[in-house]
Amino acid sequence: MVEVTPRRIAEHMMSREGAAPAWGLVLEEARAGYARVRMTLRTDMLNGFGGAHGGMIFALADSAFAYACNSHNAATVAAQASIVFLASPKVGDVLVAEAREEALVGRSGVYAVAVRTREGADIAHFQGLSRTVGGPVLGTADRDAG
Amino acid sequence: MVEVTPRRIAEHMMSREGAAPAWGLVLEEARAGYARVRMTLRTDMLNGFGGAHGGMIFALADSAFAYACNSHNAATVAAQASIVFLASPKVGDVLVAEAREEALVGRSGVYAVAVRTREGADIAHFQGLSRTVGGPVLGTADRDAG
Amino acid sequence: MVEVTPRRIAEHMMSREGAAPAWGLVLEEARAGYARVRMTLRTDMLNGFGGAHGGMIFALADSAFAYACNSHNAATVAAQASIVFLASPKVGDVLVAEAREEALVGRSGVYAVAVRTREGADIAHFQGLSRTVGGPVLGTADRDAG
Amino acid sequence: MVEVTPRRIAEHMMSREGAAPAWGLVLEEARAGYARVRMTLRTDMLNGFGGAHGGMIFALADSAFAYACNSHNAATVAAQASIVFLASPKVGDVLVAEAREEALVGRSGVYAVAVRTREGADIAHFQGLSRTVGGPVLGTADRDAG
Repeated sequence: MVEVTPRRIAEHMMSREGAAPAWGLVLEEARAGYARVRMTLRTDMLNGFGGAHGGMIFALADSAFAYACNSHNAATVAAQASIVFLASPKVGDVLVAEAREEALVGRSGVYAVAVRTREGADIAHFQGLSRTVGGPVLGTADRDAG
Repeated sequence: MVEVTPRRIAEHMMSREGAAPAWGLVLEEARAGYARVRMTLRTDMLNGFGGAHGGMIFALADSAFAYACNSHNAATVAAQASIVFLASPKVGDVLVAEAREEALVGRSGVYAVAVRTREGADIAHFQGLSRTVGGPVLGTADRDAG
Repeated sequence: MVEVTPRRIAEHMMSREGAAPAWGLVLEEARAGYARVRMTLRTDMLNGFGGAHGGMIFALADSAFAYACNSHNAATVAAQASIVFLASPKVGDVLVAEAREEALVGRSGVYAVAVRTREGADIAHFQGLSRTVGGPVLGTADRDAG
Repeated sequence: MVEVTPRRIAEHMMSREGAAPAWGLVLEEARAGYARVRMTLRTDMLNGFGGAHGGMIFALADSAFAYACNSHNAATVAAQASIVFLASPKVGDVLVAEAREEALVGRSGVYAVAVRTREGADIAHFQGLSRTVGGPVLGTADRDAG
């Protein structure tokens, strides 16, 4: 039987979703309460001023948040998120979103996500509130099939 | 010479960006301080639980916000945004984001964006802080070419 | 028997709390999903730059939010809030916070609160996420005693 | 001549404001991009449900944020803040707000503030966006007088 690890949970989520492959997300690391995800900025992710669309920067941060808050293998969704935009990356930039668990109290969790270029320049900072809705993300049947 | 209207500004932004066509955004209405945008949820916009990825709901709201805060024809960017997720729409749902200007003080603006299904069910509520960075969105040259 | 109205609920909350009298809050209006509260800015509410402390502007908005989200007589608490600061009022300014319900889905509510001077100048805009925790705010016993 | 340190800047701000003494704030530590502040919860800080008023929890976090973002001795104000409430402290609880700088890009800064009881229980998590408006907080004249 395959062990349920944060990485397997994140990979399971990514294999079931339409968004991660559409955006070219790459999972760099997943641990309990932590996930780091990479995305390369494409022309179909730009806004009308030629910079990254804020929606794509948020989407990357939100993905890292989702893998981090589901890392305990209890199905968890986003209730709220706030993002500050600091700089606008350009086409071809590799963006890295790093999500860390700040707190987990009952069914509520708080996660901080930093979005930076691969070179370390700050692009955005995100804070998300998660709510655990129950049930495992990756169950026995999934594991057997995994 | 073509008049500069909020609709022309939004259409100009949409014609220059990669994201709006990639997501199938449709501009329903644009007025001073107001924009309404529609998007049909596709399978490549889903998360690992089979619902809409929060990033795509945010991206739709953020687009309406962008057209509303640039409607005065002064180039304006998002500094921050906060979103509350209330329900998860499904594939094929038509989502409508309606952005209204709450306040405009100096170079800072506040916009409220409601995301609902076409049937009126609340999906998410967004509040964005914009910052005007100067220069027209749609200049004379653009107008002549328009 | 006394009817349970949004105004009675808000007055009941104000009579039980330490904060409202300490801050000199005045309830101007309360309706279902709506509350308007007034506060006069005092010297003990100022920050180190001589303007209103952001904490007091938030506290006023949060109070209006609390009366609005409890107006349906189901005990409701704040889960999250976001605030944008647009201008800094001065000592003696009368601030008015007006809270409106944007959405109510299951146990989650979204409220927009505008904080303005009595003259109508925008000071701050707030968005709050509430969560209903169950039980009436103002019960039969309270009403009999009211 | 007295050296300008983050602690001196924070003490200078506290000495000029009405709010810090009114709330009984105690500065525990101040470093570049960091501040930790303590407050004991009093009955005049309670809401109508007998717990801490969210406004006071925010006010404590916002104060730590203010000392942290002014620690570089350039006058800086809050543009926006978001807070998640996780638990409700009781009268007599000692709350500690710890503010850390997440990013500083041009005139914009992002700060994360954790509010916990002295025993370490999570109460709230706050993210603030600051904007530097120019001029020193603590100038030469102030230093000579200090």
